Amino acid sequence: MALIVQKYGGTSVGSVERIQAVADRVCKARARGDDVVVVVSAMSGQTNRLVELAYAISEEPVGREYDVLLSSGEQVSIALVAMAIQSAGRAARSFLGYQADIQTDASFGRARIESIDASRIQRALNEGAVAVVAGFQGTDSEGNITTLGRGGSDTTAVALAAALKADVCEIYTDVDGIYTTDPRIVPEASRIPRIAFEEMLELASLGAKVLQTRSVEFAMKYAVPIHVRSSFHEAEGSWVVPEEESMEQVVVRAVAYDKNEARISLLQIPDQPGVAHKVFSPLSEAGIVVDMIIQNDSQRSGHTDLTFTVPTADRARTVALIEEANKRLGGSGIESDADIAKVSVVGVGMRTHSGVATRMFAVLSEAGINIQMISTSEIKISVVIAEEHTDKAVQALHAAFKLDALA
Amino acid sequence: MALIVQKYGGTSVGSVERIQAVADRVCKARARGDDVVVVVSAMSGQTNRLVELAYAISEEPVGREYDVLLSSGEQVSIALVAMAIQSAGRAARSFLGYQADIQTDASFGRARIESIDASRIQRALNEGAVAVVAGFQGTDSEGNITTLGRGGSDTTAVALAAALKADVCEIYTDVDGIYTTDPRIVPEASRIPRIAFEEMLELASLGAKVLQTRSVEFAMKYAVPIHVRSSFHEAEGSWVVPEEESMEQVVVRAVAYDKNEARISLLQIPDQPGVAHKVFSPLSEAGIVVDMIIQNDSQRSGHTDLTFTVPTADRARTVALIEEANKRLGGSGIESDADIAKVSVVGVGMRTHSGVATRMFAVLSEAGINIQMISTSEIKISVVIAEEHTDKAVQALHAAFKLDALA
Repeated sequence: MALIVQKYGGTSVGSVERIQAVADRVCKARARGDDVVVVVSAMSGQTNRLVELAYAISEEPVGREYDVLLSSGEQVSIALVAMAIQSAGRAARSFLGYQADIQTDASFGRARIESIDASRIQRALNEGAVAVVAGFQGTDSEGNITTLGRGGSDTTAVALAAALKADVCEIYTDVDGIYTTDPRIVPEASRIPRIAFEEMLELASLGAKVLQTRSVEFAMKYAVPIHVRSSFHEAEGSWVVPEEESMEQVVVRAVAYDKNEARISLLQIPDQPGVAHKVFSPLSEAGIVVDMIIQNDSQRSGHTDLTFTVPTADRARTVALIEEANKRLGGSGIESDADIAKVSVVGVGMRTHSGVATRMFAVLSEAGINIQMISTSEIKISVVIAEEHTDKAVQALHAAFKLDALA
Repeated sequence: MALIVQKYGGTSVGSVERIQAVADRVCKARARGDDVVVVVSAMSGQTNRLVELAYAISEEPVGREYDVLLSSGEQVSIALVAMAIQSAGRAARSFLGYQADIQTDASFGRARIESIDASRIQRALNEGAVAVVAGFQGTDSEGNITTLGRGGSDTTAVALAAALKADVCEIYTDVDGIYTTDPRIVPEASRIPRIAFEEMLELASLGAKVLQTRSVEFAMKYAVPIHVRSSFHEAEGSWVVPEEESMEQVVVRAVAYDKNEARISLLQIPDQPGVAHKVFSPLSEAGIVVDMIIQNDSQRSGHTDLTFTVPTADRARTVALIEEANKRLGGSGIESDADIAKVSVVGVGMRTHSGVATRMFAVLSEAGINIQMISTSEIKISVVIAEEHTDKAVQALHAAFKLDALA
């Protein structure tokens, strides 16, 4: 008699047959005596159709009405999934974001969940029904529909699991679990049976697309175990859990890469207090997230190069915004390059094993790959390299840190 | 400076181009200084797509979840229309049924509007925005989504016009207005410039598909003038208004027909008190709406034939439900026939002109058409005939009552 939150992504509810498979799985859990909350995304293809319509009407669809549009996709899914569960003989009841009392801030398109009053869902469960909840959406304090951004259904599921004190949050997807790296690049990549919240958090923010970063933050904060698994079979997937002692024995848990950043450099600007503030405050005001920042040595000249990365989509806007700062600072120019990739290794074992960075640099050097930028945290090392070397770098690191061997 | 409610049907928002045409028309009204509330249906084709999905999952999709599914169609429309108005340079804000506080009873699939608190919409208008409201949907007292049945967007529009004390409710559609009869049957049929609420109410319930019956009831109750017109051009359409003195000069305003009824007869049942109750109470309990009822003369035998009509879709269910009553009453059998049509003439002029029924029967007799049942009210006469004679009957009546001449 457990309480399980099951989240199904767009592929897992992408057709009538897939929806019926979801209903079957839900009914099996009910037959075991478990209470089940189902969180669903829009049917795959549906969101793209809506986005196309929006772009045909508006040059840059954003804001309140775009969220009203996109959230209709999940509305279709919850109704069909609830009907399928009913057809399979179990009681079910659907909940939209506002009906599930998922309160968010008012940042349309990337809203953050502020609170959930799960009492209506709990009541449905107490009455023996499966609660089918629309992922990705909430409601702000004015009753407007908000959406949580790409992958937001993961966050809905974990936040609901936290609010309901569920035993587990199962994330059903079209892959078997979380892999040591992208199997399309390294066929020897293997499923990670157990991974720590902190590692997963790094991986999610470093470009692994399995879980939304925010969902892992929620899971870590409320200690909700996540089980990422395939909706196509019954095998175990990957568990995301609080750190366990044995986890430190593995130095590197996974290798991640992200091709969606661009590198921007301000050349020969004065090396003085206040320079970084002048450059970065217009960007933060514009909502542009700066990732890595490095500043070159300036012992000789009193001038320096300032280099940083932003999402590729924000590259042109960023260059335009820092033009003025560059002029005021008397810099010699702005360079930007979108043909870069960030490659990272992650593992809680780094805390107790030294020399991981040295090893990483050696491996890349042997492969003839030049490192443009470096950034580290307690449990990860990231480097920026030319995008064309991405596959080679990932393959070399995956082999060097013995991740192939886990297979 | 008027307050106008404009309702656009599925065809009128059926593509990006049509949605942009709606935005243009709305912006013209704003440019004149009018406040505008737009009520929209789902994009044409959208509802059918959803219905198909539902039938693939459930044998008989009904109830709460079906309403959640269907109402998503209007959600897409309001978002796109609001975005199109914004792109055309005017402020706009969309409202779902619950956001517009459209309270209904809990009869899923055929809910009735109980009240509207239009204050949120009024606030948007006061702020200079166009309010774009989802037709066809409301919310019950538990916060569940309800839908108003086929044509329900008309009712949303008129009810909102009443709540807002709007100057006019414009119903935009793919035809020019209300016609003296179906132009597909009578090419000489002409647009009716002005028609009384009562006449329109009869026509709507007699099978004319221009307006939902319930919307006309609302309009009549709150004296909201309705202007039915084409979304493809600017010409005047048909006004539905309180009865005017001159209207009685025309004896017959329009000829309507309905092929969606079936005739059911209980043969040779006792002619006693309580018989009708025994036959009809199981039907009303099952929610089946009986339209016409006749009982034959029984002076000789003490037995009678009881004949009535129900929607064709309810025929099989009706026959099954009255089997038992027929047995208990010792009737000699049940006959049913779906190949019938109800043909009606409507006009407030009937109140002051006698002999309309006689004239109608003579016209049908001359055309060699047998009358199976007759039903009359103060302003309409309906007859049931064999379905195969529908076109001939409509054409003959349209000509005999000089409706061709209006063209």
